[in-house]
Amino acid sequence: MTSISIIGSGKMSGAIAEVATRAGASIQIIKRGAESMSAARPGLDYGVMGDKLIGDLVVLAVPYGAYPSIVERYRDQLREKVVVDISNPIDFSTFDQLKSPADSSTAAELVKLLPAGTAVVKAFNVNLGDTLASGTNGTTRTTVLFAGDYADAKIAVAAFIEAAGMRAVDVGPLTRARELEAMGFLQIVLAALGKTRYESGFTLLE
Amino acid sequence: MTSISIIGSGKMSGAIAEVATRAGASIQIIKRGAESMSAARPGLDYGVMGDKLIGDLVVLAVPYGAYPSIVERYRDQLREKVVVDISNPIDFSTFDQLKSPADSSTAAELVKLLPAGTAVVKAFNVNLGDTLASGTNGTTRTTVLFAGDYADAKIAVAAFIEAAGMRAVDVGPLTRARELEAMGFLQIVLAALGKTRYESGFTLLE
Repeated sequence: MTSISIIGSGKMSGAIAEVATRAGASIQIIKRGAESMSAARPGLDYGVMGDKLIGDLVVLAVPYGAYPSIVERYRDQLREKVVVDISNPIDFSTFDQLKSPADSSTAAELVKLLPAGTAVVKAFNVNLGDTLASGTNGTTRTTVLFAGDYADAKIAVAAFIEAAGMRAVDVGPLTRARELEAMGFLQIVLAALGKTRYESGFTLLE
Repeated sequence: MTSISIIGSGKMSGAIAEVATRAGASIQIIKRGAESMSAARPGLDYGVMGDKLIGDLVVLAVPYGAYPSIVERYRDQLREKVVVDISNPIDFSTFDQLKSPADSSTAAELVKLLPAGTAVVKAFNVNLGDTLASGTNGTTRTTVLFAGDYADAKIAVAAFIEAAGMRAVDVGPLTRARELEAMGFLQIVLAALGKTRYESGFTLLE
């Protein structure tokens, strides 16, 4: 059984916690400063920023802009973890571009912040939160696309996804995060425009 | 009934011609120099580079690198057309990046080449050719994502797609071509890796 620490306590944190519950994982949720918290659920271990991370997988469920402060706080611990980047750094003032560099990705920028050799996996960013919480995307089983450079880390993330009853699709090395982020951005725009429901979105047909 | 000119005679040209046949459009295919040609079919008007374009819609079914020479040849005629950019400029030597600028798209670069005010629509690049030729993507009706800045042009392209029995989804202004191209690239990589079949791929669930 795997264990997971989720940093952040917003909507995506709750969705990933539902996934972890289905996967039978032990769960720690690290609250940031003064942010609001959904009601505590049994089986979840709540902590605050600075608490030791108990999970083998660590999901950053915070805005991209908060990555440097998270890494500053947890740098040494993250070196031993599988760090999961789920972000879509949309500029919500314009809904017209990403805040990450055009030739890069939040995942690639995160790698630069972390100790050399830290395993980062991009995952879950092309899934609207409701499709993770429910495990279904429209009438299909939810497919989770992921990318990374370390085989062991990718196997761990894929096992977590599959244990939660979803389909895991490895799209390649971490450089593919750029395309995953473009797709995640497009999906959020389409949901906001009403072109897809928040309970569905993109999928990869078999 | 609409009319379409397809410049190029490779696989995507054939797929778009199938779409046009289903849509009841009159079809002109402009062959480039010495490239190979599939067998001529009744109802198609074949021409060669330099022939007058008869279509209201003009699809560039040529590699991105050929755009400048096409525009040089047809600049004045394209000003009055709806120009459809379907390209995914993958660097097939590495399968690891696009040839278009990271902060741009082939569609945006095409606009720079054309006379001011020419209507460019990005479409069909997130569809593997077989899903256009058949009108089905896996077990679903094929969905075609498109983007552009001119309402009349987008209406014409959407009508063409729908007349061919497919679902047309407007994803926004032509700046979204960047995300469509990232997604098209990712899809081709996944098909090459065997993660999806060439008869299916990505779709947007309703």
